[in-house]
Parts: sequence; structure tokens; C-alpha cells
Amino acid sequence: MADPRFYSVAGPFGLEKLAAIAKAEIAGTPANRGADYRDVAPLSRAGPTDVSFLDNRRYLPDFKASRAGACLVAPDVVKAAPNGMVLLVTREPYAAYARVAAAFYPRPAPRPGTDTRAAVGPDAKIGEGCRIDAGAVIGVHAEIGRRCHVAANAVVGDGVVVGDDCYIGPGASLAYCVVGSRVIIHAGARIGQDGFGFAPGSGGHVKVPQLGRVVIGDDVEIGANTTIDRGAGPDTIVGAGTKIDNLVQIAHNVELGRGCIVVAQVGISGSTKIGDFVMLGGQAGLTGHLTIGGGAKIAAQAGVMRDIEPGVTVGGSPAVPMREWLKGVAIVARMARKEGG
Amino acid sequence: MADPRFYSVAGPFGLEKLAAIAKAEIAGTPANRGADYRDVAPLSRAGPTDVSFLDNRRYLPDFKASRAGACLVAPDVVKAAPNGMVLLVTREPYAAYARVAAAFYPRPAPRPGTDTRAAVGPDAKIGEGCRIDAGAVIGVHAEIGRRCHVAANAVVGDGVVVGDDCYIGPGASLAYCVVGSRVIIHAGARIGQDGFGFAPGSGGHVKVPQLGRVVIGDDVEIGANTTIDRGAGPDTIVGAGTKIDNLVQIAHNVELGRGCIVVAQVGISGSTKIGDFVMLGGQAGLTGHLTIGGGAKIAAQAGVMRDIEPGVTVGGSPAVPMREWLKGVAIVARMARKEGG
Amino acid sequence: MADPRFYSVAGPFGLEKLAAIAKAEIAGTPANRGADYRDVAPLSRAGPTDVSFLDNRRYLPDFKASRAGACLVAPDVVKAAPNGMVLLVTREPYAAYARVAAAFYPRPAPRPGTDTRAAVGPDAKIGEGCRIDAGAVIGVHAEIGRRCHVAANAVVGDGVVVGDDCYIGPGASLAYCVVGSRVIIHAGARIGQDGFGFAPGSGGHVKVPQLGRVVIGDDVEIGANTTIDRGAGPDTIVGAGTKIDNLVQIAHNVELGRGCIVVAQVGISGSTKIGDFVMLGGQAGLTGHLTIGGGAKIAAQAGVMRDIEPGVTVGGSPAVPMREWLKGVAIVARMARKEGG
Repeated sequence: MADPRFYSVAGPFGLEKLAAIAKAEIAGTPANRGADYRDVAPLSRAGPTDVSFLDNRRYLPDFKASRAGACLVAPDVVKAAPNGMVLLVTREPYAAYARVAAAFYPRPAPRPGTDTRAAVGPDAKIGEGCRIDAGAVIGVHAEIGRRCHVAANAVVGDGVVVGDDCYIGPGASLAYCVVGSRVIIHAGARIGQDGFGFAPGSGGHVKVPQLGRVVIGDDVEIGANTTIDRGAGPDTIVGAGTKIDNLVQIAHNVELGRGCIVVAQVGISGSTKIGDFVMLGGQAGLTGHLTIGGGAKIAAQAGVMRDIEPGVTVGGSPAVPMREWLKGVAIVARMARKEGG
Repeated sequence: MADPRFYSVAGPFGLEKLAAIAKAEIAGTPANRGADYRDVAPLSRAGPTDVSFLDNRRYLPDFKASRAGACLVAPDVVKAAPNGMVLLVTREPYAAYARVAAAFYPRPAPRPGTDTRAAVGPDAKIGEGCRIDAGAVIGVHAEIGRRCHVAANAVVGDGVVVGDDCYIGPGASLAYCVVGSRVIIHAGARIGQDGFGFAPGSGGHVKVPQLGRVVIGDDVEIGANTTIDRGAGPDTIVGAGTKIDNLVQIAHNVELGRGCIVVAQVGISGSTKIGDFVMLGGQAGLTGHLTIGGGAKIAAQAGVMRDIEPGVTVGGSPAVPMREWLKGVAIVARMARKEGG
Repeated sequence: MADPRFYSVAGPFGLEKLAAIAKAEIAGTPANRGADYRDVAPLSRAGPTDVSFLDNRRYLPDFKASRAGACLVAPDVVKAAPNGMVLLVTREPYAAYARVAAAFYPRPAPRPGTDTRAAVGPDAKIGEGCRIDAGAVIGVHAEIGRRCHVAANAVVGDGVVVGDDCYIGPGASLAYCVVGSRVIIHAGARIGQDGFGFAPGSGGHVKVPQLGRVVIGDDVEIGANTTIDRGAGPDTIVGAGTKIDNLVQIAHNVELGRGCIVVAQVGISGSTKIGDFVMLGGQAGLTGHLTIGGGAKIAAQAGVMRDIEPGVTVGGSPAVPMREWLKGVAIVARMARKEGG
């Protein structure tokens, strides 16, 4: 059970209701069809009134030993279930779990109001239902949509536009940017500062004025302490539905497509364009001015120095097609073992 | 045109004036010599009253198709220009663009004043013309020079000294440091906290008191969420004119020379000394106690474990001279292809 | 001598007292046994009233030329000491230096009090002797132990529990976490935000509610701008005595054991379990769901994709046992040189 200091649980839910929330089928006709479920829990800790899930097959032993009352599973593991466990079958058990967990633990709407210790600039517009916490600073002419939560000590710069139902975490700062709706910006994220633009000149590095913005689509999530610089002239763009993890660096003029997944500590250099539904593994780095095709997959720690065609998977530094990278790794390992023997 | 919510444009400027600002020559005797220019714009978006530039030859097709009224170019692309485009010729088109853009979009001087919601400690000195935003906290005995802008929720610790014309971004924090003039510190940068110093001891890791400072030269720029630890006994030093990107880690006792370029997510371990005008590519890492000669170039993602002579370029992890690294990469790739065939 | 703007020095200390603090033996019977020592200093800058230390043999030339009045050394370098230097001999000179430096520069207890510009939520408990600086925000029902220092603009979220004698740096933020005693959290660290949990679904990425906490043991240190996400269901755990450097990413459900050292910019993916006294070099990355045995050592920039047995040292990306990695590197270098010749 989630720590009641931090979470309060809704429910309980009956089996039919759970199946509807999960968009899953109830397997067979369980004896305990009328039972109520009170919480979600991991397989190893779940009890008879908990709903759990199996997604990563690494946890199959935990599944077989689990005492969970009900479990969200893919069709192919139904037969491995322990006796007495009610199965909710779906092709997407993790997404189904997400829906069930959100039913038990709905994200509370922010309590509306502006703390007396927040500072709201002249001509700023705050939509109805917003919560502005202590120490938050909202700039001149900024516009915040409805039902947003601006957390403690966050800074929304002059003229910044934020859509509806957004969350801006503690200490985050936004400047020179236009943000869509249902966007989550975690603590300490830095959006819209000057890009790293210097022209080598005879008298030292000349600072290049950065005249663009950051434009963030709907349903984007931006991780803690991630940095997104504003464009130099064009905008820096993050497409709708893209999810960015912590400590990621996105340089000026980068364009990220829709539905991308960018894992922690990735770095994307200036003016690189990334298509839709691209996946970037943790700590991967991309040089500037590249074009990465839609659906490409970039392995963790890869160092991408060339354009990538749509749908291609790459790895290594410098990055090459995954198969080629793995083969090179295997060849070197074989030589090392042979020499050692 | 830059978004008027965030930028206001100066000008217009005549051609002669632009050439003087850019330190460029007007090519030939254009028919429209008397025209006025109203803005800067990228090649692909520029129109007849805009000034653009061509620096990276990757954008030559955009140049040939551009409708820009005038363009800053190097001598060797003059012949490729489209009809009717006025050319401003210079060996440093990007630096020239930086000067022209700064003329159209001059950085406004901060409006002087201390917000009533800032907290200024006893005996702190704030120079004339400074702007201290809401939520900024200035410590006891701190000294801020003239015309500085301390942005919202920034923290300047006790005794910290800052020169003239500096910018300290939202939520940044400074402690135990002495900062020169014309220094730009972006949002969330962390300067002067304890270095990571632990002595392995029989009873666990013993914390080593960190008794130095961070000393930052004139004209330095420090990126968003970058961290610079103070020295353990000696100081951590950043030389004048050095530009540091976002999310860079600089450990205790590091000395960075003058005019270095440090790209995002670089990590420099303790006590490493780096000469003048060194370039460090993104995500490169350097172990501690190294000496890197002036003018050295370190490729992105390189892992430097040995000293580097002045002027040498290295790549790979562990880093070796660039030529050797590229050759090794090519050899492994060739073997992988052969085995696959 | 440390800059008096930032530090005040205690002492002086006589030789016997120093030896007791350092837990070291005085070598021989020095003529100046009665002398007083006034400060610590690095070998190259120390004078006759300073105490220095030699730990890394790289600095042996500095030792031989040093004018330090006394020096903490290991037994094997006693003979290399310059004439007139008093030697304090110990098997752990760096830990001994840490104790001596802490005697000269004791960390001052925080001056108790809550700044009028701090915001303390209803039902929050602040223990006796705490200092809460300007702009700090403490949430509803939060509990802070005794003698803690919450620095300017730090944010302690609703319900968060912090033990005794903790330091929470400027602008750091804590949420959904339970923190032990004597924990140091540096500026800008982000603890307890949502983990990066998305289920791929037919209608886009579905956000998975994150229902766990971050649990931090006693004597932990967490670096500037480091991010630690809360658990998804289980908790994210940092064991007692573990030291984490700047800009580290720790994902949801990670368990770090006791006494680990995690160097800057390391990234640890979700659900990976790390044993006690593991060392992770800078910029190393670990994929998710791994088990890393106690005492393992992971080289800087390593990319760990498999479980590691206790005590094993690995390097490279993908990481392999250190010996195998170094051999592979040497083989490729040899081929590159041969081809070049």
C-alpha cells in the first residue's frame, strides 16, 4: 500500500469495473467474481485484495509465486498463473496497469488559489482553477491557462504562454516559450534560456543573439533538471506527446517530433531534426544539423554523427546500424579472449 | 521576425550602416544600395528586407533559394548567390551575423531596482543600476557590481563577490566564489558547493572539508544547470572568455584556461588543468589530475585518461589521437562487414 | 590560508594535539615538537606553520620541495621527506587530513531561526535548532528534525520527513521522500519527482502513476543538480553512507546499497539493484533491472547491460571485465598502428 503520508487511495473496485477500466477480459469464470479490490501492488508484495501486473518476463518467477488477488497479464502467460489468481487479460498489460493505478490513485486537481507569497507580474493572466504556490514568480504579460499548478519557487518568465492543465514543478524556470496543454514540467527543468551560440572571431568568441523561442506541444513531459535552449532564429520544438526524462540537454533549433521517448542524460546538439516516435536511449549523444528519421531507435550511450534513415536502429560511438555494432563488439571480444588464452 | 511577445526590434538600418556593423564589404554596386533592412532571418525564411547569413556550407541549397534582401557570406560563395541578393562579404560571416543581430536586437539594460520580494542580507553591497528580481536572495556581506541582473529566485551566498554587468539566471545559486565582469550564469547553475571529497577510512568515507573557492574570470558564460564545485584547498578556476554549455560538471580544483569552449554534459574530474582555447565536445569526460595542453581538441564522448599535448586532437574512450581512433573504428567496421558477407 | 570572506580558522594546535586528531604517529623526535600549527595547506603552498598531506604519489615531487611545517604521510614515504618537516605517519593520510582540516575549519552549527521570508505550511514540524532561510518553502505535514539547515529557496514537499542534522542546499527540492540523519543534499538536487514511467499503448504513451517514495539512509550525500525519482510502487532506496556526486540520474525503484560512491553524471536506469560499497565511475550508465554485486567497480563511461558479480571490475560499453576490455582496446590500437606504418 502506498504511504498514506503521500497518497490516498480511491476504490474499492469490483472485478467488472476493473476490467472495464483496464480494457481487459476476465479469464474464465473465477469463483471470486464478486470480490472487491482495494489497491495495486507489485507481484512480490501483492495480497488477495490487490491488483498486480506482469509485463517484463524477467518477473515471471514473481508472478508464479504471487499472492495477488488479480493480475493484468498478456494472453501467453495465462497458463503460468498460480491457483486462485484472477486474470485480467490484455495485449497491453503495462498500459492496462497504468489505467487501473490511475483509478486507485487519481491525480488530485490542484486546490485553486494564489499563495500570498507568490509574485504575479503586471498584466499576467492566470486562468481559472490555477494553483500558484509560495515563492512562484510569474512575469509580466505571462499567460497561464486553466487548472494549472505552478509549484513553489518556479519561475514563469515575461510573456510566456502556458496552456490548460499543466504542471510546472518546484524551482523550474520558463522563458521565451509557448507551452501546450496537459504538459508536465518537472522540478528544476530549464526552458528557454539562451542557446550556446558563439561565433569564433579574431577577438575571441562573439555571442550570437538568440532570437527564437521554445515551442512545446500538448501532452509533453519534461524531466527534472532537463535543459531546453531557445532557438537562435528558428524555434526549438518539442512535438506533442513526446516524453523527456531527467538531465537531458536539447540545444537551440532542435526539432523533436511527436511521441518520442528521450531517456535520461541524452544530449541533442543544435539544429538536429528528429522525426516522430523516435526512441533515444540513456546518455546517447547526437551532433548538430542531423536528420533522424521517424521511428528510428538509438541505443543507450550511442554517439550519432550522421543522419539516420526512418526506422533504423543504431548503436555504438560513432553509431552504426545495431547489427554491425554488435558484430564489431563480438569480434573484438573474441580476439581479446583468444589472445588471453 | 522574432516573436514580439519576447523581442523588440531596433533599426531599420541602411546598407552602409550594416556593412560597418558587420565589418564586411558590400559586393559590387547593388542597384538597391539605398534600401533599408528591418530584421535578421534564417535563409529559408528571410524576405527582401531581411539580412541573413551563410556559414555552414550544409545550408548552401537554402542560400541559393533564399529570398533574403542581403546576406553575410564568405568570399568563396559570392558566385553562388541568387540574383538580386545583396552580399556583405567577410571572412567571418557568423561573427558578422552576431554583430548585426545584436544591432537589431540589443540586449536591454536591466531596469534598475530591487523587488520588494527579494531578500538582501545585512552588509551586502549592491552596485548602482542593478536589478534584483522577486525571490532573489543575496547573502550577508555579498558584493554585487554595477548594472547586474539577479533574476527571480537566484541565490547569491554570503560573501560572494560579483563584478559589473553580470547576469545571474533564475534559480541559479552561487557560494564561496568570486566572479568577474560581464559574466552570464544561466538558470539553475550551481557554483561553489562542496566538492566531492571523501577519504576512504576504516570507519567509512570521511568527508574532506572543502576550503577553496570558485574564481571566474571576465566574459565567462556558464550554462543552465551546470555545476562547478569549489576547490578543496586550491581554488577551482574558470579563465576569462571561456564558454560553458548546459549540464556540465566541473569538479574541485579544476583549472580551465582562457577562451575554452565546453559543450554540454562534459565532465571534468578533480584537479585536472586545462590550457587556453581548448575545445571539449559534448559528453566528453576527463579523469582527475590531468594536464591538457592549450589548443587541444577533445571529441564528443571522448574519455580522456592521460595528459594531452598542446594542439593535439583526441577521440574515443579511452581517448587516443584522432587519426588513430578513426583508424581503429574503420578496422573494426571492416571486419564486421567482412564477417557478415 | 582559506579566504577569510568565506572561512574562519580555529586553532592553533600543538603537535601532540594534531597527532591525536589525525590518529597518526609523530615520526622521530622533532626539534620543533613544541611548535604551534595554524592552518592546513596544499604541499606547494604550505609554510612552516601549516599542516599538509601526501596521499596521491603523483604529488611526490611537491612533497620533496614542500616547506610545510608538518605533513601527514604514509609510512613508505617517510624517507623522502625534506629536512625539517615534521611527519605525522598514518596508513590513511587522506582521511587523517580530513580530520585535521575539520579541526581547523569546523562546520559551524546553523544559527537557529526561521527567516520571515520562508513559508512553512500548516502542521509542519520543525525541530529545535533548525535554520530555515529566506525563500525556503516547507509543505503541509512535513517533519524536519533537529539542527537542520534548509537553505534559501529550497522546497520540502508535503509530508516529507527529514532526520536530524541535515543540510538541504539552495533551490533543492524534495517530495515523497523520507530522509535519514546527517544527510547533505546539495543545491538544486531533485528528489522524489515522478519516475519516467510510460506504457506504450495503442493511443500513445500512457503515464503510469508513480506510487512509491524515495528512502534515503543516514550519512548520505547527494550532489548538486542530481535527480532521484521516486519509486513506481516499490521505493527508490539510497543506503546509509552512500555518496552521490553532481548531475547523477537515479531512476525509479533503483536500490543503492550502503557506502557506495557514485561519481558525477552517472545514470542508473529503473529497478536496478546495486550492492554495498560499489564504486561507479563518472558518466557510467546502467540499464534497468540489473543486479550489481557488492564491492563491484564500474569504470568511468562504462555501459553496463548485464548483471555483475560481487567484487568484479568492469569497463567499456558494453561493459566487460576490466582485463578483457583493456585487452580489446590494446588489440585495436595495435592494428591501427600497424596499418598506419
